[in-house]
Amino acid sequence: MTKPTMLNNVDIEKVAALTQKIQNEPKTADTKWSAEVEWKGGFRCDTRIREFSPTASDEPDALGGTDAGPNPAEQLLAALGNCLAVGYAANATAAGIKLNGMKIKIDGDLDLHTFMGLREGHAGFNNIVAQVDLKTDASPEQLKALHEKVRSTSPIGHTLQNAVRVTVKPV
Amino acid sequence: MTKPTMLNNVDIEKVAALTQKIQNEPKTADTKWSAEVEWKGGFRCDTRIREFSPTASDEPDALGGTDAGPNPAEQLLAALGNCLAVGYAANATAAGIKLNGMKIKIDGDLDLHTFMGLREGHAGFNNIVAQVDLKTDASPEQLKALHEKVRSTSPIGHTLQNAVRVTVKPV
Repeated sequence: MTKPTMLNNVDIEKVAALTQKIQNEPKTADTKWSAEVEWKGGFRCDTRIREFSPTASDEPDALGGTDAGPNPAEQLLAALGNCLAVGYAANATAAGIKLNGMKIKIDGDLDLHTFMGLREGHAGFNNIVAQVDLKTDASPEQLKALHEKVRSTSPIGHTLQNAVRVTVKPV
Repeated sequence: MTKPTMLNNVDIEKVAALTQKIQNEPKTADTKWSAEVEWKGGFRCDTRIREFSPTASDEPDALGGTDAGPNPAEQLLAALGNCLAVGYAANATAAGIKLNGMKIKIDGDLDLHTFMGLREGHAGFNNIVAQVDLKTDASPEQLKALHEKVRSTSPIGHTLQNAVRVTVKPV
């Protein structure tokens, strides 16, 4: 019997090859990512990422925008949800757990006082909750280990849960 | 002479009305945001935000994905760039500064060792840099104050620069 090369539509051999490559050449793990934003007037922007079509960002009418797209707060929650989904897919596959479906809902609370210039202090999210709905026949023990593994290795989760150096500078 | 109601395509009266509303009813500033992610197999997801069309998230081929859309790391950088752009537009307008254009490039470094299970520790971005290219006739003093104002009030900037409580739980 040959080992399966695909589970959960994850290419096990490709992921194993990447892991091996990082072990052989640790610098391979130093990845760099970019996005470019072009302001279109008001609170409306177009985002460009690599060769993908530009996507619209805006604020809702209640916040003074024209509601042409999700706002940055929603985009950040989506980034976390998509990262967690990759984490569950990758780690479930590594553990031999078949996933029959996954939905993640991410909610966050943000107090606008600082952004609106009405007080000093933290302008960002106060609290973010991701509710993960997995369809799987895995045992409770397997699932507990999977949740713990994803929590402890999520790039976007860790970016939010820790203070990251952010430099904003004029060109 | 009447006061202008629009500058930089920002509706000054609408923003002033929101500020007034928050001053009168502080709870108005407590905003809640959400995103929903549906896993499509592999590292591919669809994100739903309010009534907007679903957007694709994926990982590049080199990371085991099918490259159907920007990955979560890129999405997070875009969220920061879009938030900063709103901050510049809002605060320039409040200061009476006309913007003739704005582009923001956001770059970030992320070490994959933790995500790949090859070591424990921080899995997130190590360093994020936003380069802000403003086209404006504002004075250097006005620009310095504008940059400082945006840095000190950016919701996504502060979310990244501070540790935020993130709860990941099964439903």
